[in-house]
Amino acid sequence: MTTNFIQSVTFDDQGRLHILDQTKLPHITEFIEIESVEDTWDAIKQLKVRGAPAIGIAAAYGLVLAVKDAPEDSFDSFYQVFKKHLDYLASSRPTAVNLFWALNRLDELVKQQQTQPISEIKASLIKEAHEIRNEDEELCRAIGEHALTLLEDGMTVLTHCNAGGIATAKYGTALAPIYLAKEKGMDIKVFADETRPLLQGARLTTWELMQAGVDVTLIADNMAAMVMKKGMVQAVIVGCDRVAANGDAANKIGTYGVALLAKAHNIPFYVAAPTPTIDIDTPTGEDIPIEERGSEEITQAFGIETAPQGVNVFNPAFDVTPHDLITAIITEKGVIKGNYSEELKKLFI
Amino acid sequence: MTTNFIQSVTFDDQGRLHILDQTKLPHITEFIEIESVEDTWDAIKQLKVRGAPAIGIAAAYGLVLAVKDAPEDSFDSFYQVFKKHLDYLASSRPTAVNLFWALNRLDELVKQQQTQPISEIKASLIKEAHEIRNEDEELCRAIGEHALTLLEDGMTVLTHCNAGGIATAKYGTALAPIYLAKEKGMDIKVFADETRPLLQGARLTTWELMQAGVDVTLIADNMAAMVMKKGMVQAVIVGCDRVAANGDAANKIGTYGVALLAKAHNIPFYVAAPTPTIDIDTPTGEDIPIEERGSEEITQAFGIETAPQGVNVFNPAFDVTPHDLITAIITEKGVIKGNYSEELKKLFI
Repeated sequence: MTTNFIQSVTFDDQGRLHILDQTKLPHITEFIEIESVEDTWDAIKQLKVRGAPAIGIAAAYGLVLAVKDAPEDSFDSFYQVFKKHLDYLASSRPTAVNLFWALNRLDELVKQQQTQPISEIKASLIKEAHEIRNEDEELCRAIGEHALTLLEDGMTVLTHCNAGGIATAKYGTALAPIYLAKEKGMDIKVFADETRPLLQGARLTTWELMQAGVDVTLIADNMAAMVMKKGMVQAVIVGCDRVAANGDAANKIGTYGVALLAKAHNIPFYVAAPTPTIDIDTPTGEDIPIEERGSEEITQAFGIETAPQGVNVFNPAFDVTPHDLITAIITEKGVIKGNYSEELKKLFI
Repeated sequence: MTTNFIQSVTFDDQGRLHILDQTKLPHITEFIEIESVEDTWDAIKQLKVRGAPAIGIAAAYGLVLAVKDAPEDSFDSFYQVFKKHLDYLASSRPTAVNLFWALNRLDELVKQQQTQPISEIKASLIKEAHEIRNEDEELCRAIGEHALTLLEDGMTVLTHCNAGGIATAKYGTALAPIYLAKEKGMDIKVFADETRPLLQGARLTTWELMQAGVDVTLIADNMAAMVMKKGMVQAVIVGCDRVAANGDAANKIGTYGVALLAKAHNIPFYVAAPTPTIDIDTPTGEDIPIEERGSEEITQAFGIETAPQGVNVFNPAFDVTPHDLITAIITEKGVIKGNYSEELKKLFI
């Protein structure tokens, strides 16, 4: 079965970088052709590309573009140009860990190859950028394959926020099993929470699933309980920002509530977590700092004021789901269940 | 302690009807002076006045205005004018039970008094309209007094949607204990769910509580679980649209989820229900029909599109909270606990 997978970052055979402008979703599907390192910086800065893996991939390709015409006469003059562009790209979004990780990986490669002809270094950089992208696709596909063992044909799954393909190379994390099911001709439907305040579910999850022809239904966050009670969903799958050593998982605000509702209705609650998001050095969810964001996201998130001026607002960006509400954590290395403290540790031995 | 209670419908000594234009809230606080039956019809039709009790009160005063200058020479000619205006007002919002109830009450009164001079009938109508209003205030105050026995100084209460003073003569139902606490100098704080899709919590509950100087904090619906987990609320109070004979309660969508979250955190969950909303002829919540509303409330509730065109949407307007999740039902006659089937029946003996 052919499926229309949207890939948010691609680098074509002619050496052109294409980025899906996520700021225009869901109304305008526009891929912008990036021709310079400045345009790459801009796309990251302005959140045209979002999602940790997608940002890393875009930055890697952006650095490839940046040194395409760099001098090939000496390593030093090449490296000077390379490093200048690397530092420039790193300044685009200073809190994005994947951005630095991808750029550093290219930096290591260049240093290792400093005795090689510059033209070969340039070719290696392109290869490495593709590798970063392909590894992420493989990781997402592996999560999807493992997650799919937990689902059955005909099921309907509920998800919160967007842990989808456009945030990664392809497939996403929580949405990966949905896409793989589609590839295999299975029928899995989705309910998407709109995910206030920033509506990632309404704007992004519905959009990318609709592109792929997946049957998706949008609900307001407060409708999940009724959908579960009516027997309309058989599983919940969400992504995560960080998993602590004991299995507690931080994710978009609202996830904890969904987990409680799932438990009350005996519906399995799964967290899709690439191993890099599992932080063995953080003992429990209590130790994960929760960012509070500005009140205007609640009072005027849609460009119009929806609440009285000056109202008190509490706007935490994330919450923590305790491990005892999580049926399984799905990593690229397999499905983790049972004693998370024991089992998660084994992934890193 | 003097408190600034907003009363959404008032009729002054000079025979002028004033209505708070709720469609302009929370940004513009505008009381419109209603001078004719046509303006009353308009105010009800256009939802300038909303909330079942407030609509009934406005219609009663509107009918008083309508017959102010009606002929006084014979009952028949008076009643012809009276009935014409009554039918006209009844057509303003054909599904509003309180509207018909209030108008019929005035109709009964007029018929009983047909041997009286018309000027006296007119005076009785004004008195009866005030009575309808005052009874509602008394009912709300009684609910508030009973509810307050369940709360303690220093508590923080979470509410969903708007069961507040502006929907009634004064005090509201779920919010009545908050206002009474304020009158008594108690310190009770409130968390208000914004209540997607129509944002009654963000637009109305926060606004009216702020007017009265109550400490209120707005959250997105999906933040309630975290607020409870952090120990930030000690009770939940909501209003209701209908209570079945077994205590199951239908209320604004999202209420059932809040009840489940409250149970998971051992927080009492109270439903404020005037006895007219208790429907002994409806055996259980399963028998309460749930209205599904248009998808545009979810996809473009803020005047801008927040989801892809053509996306599937599920938009139930209400949900049902099973009686076993309800710690107590608070009526004007007292606090009902325990076996709801038995106890609710006693209210109607």
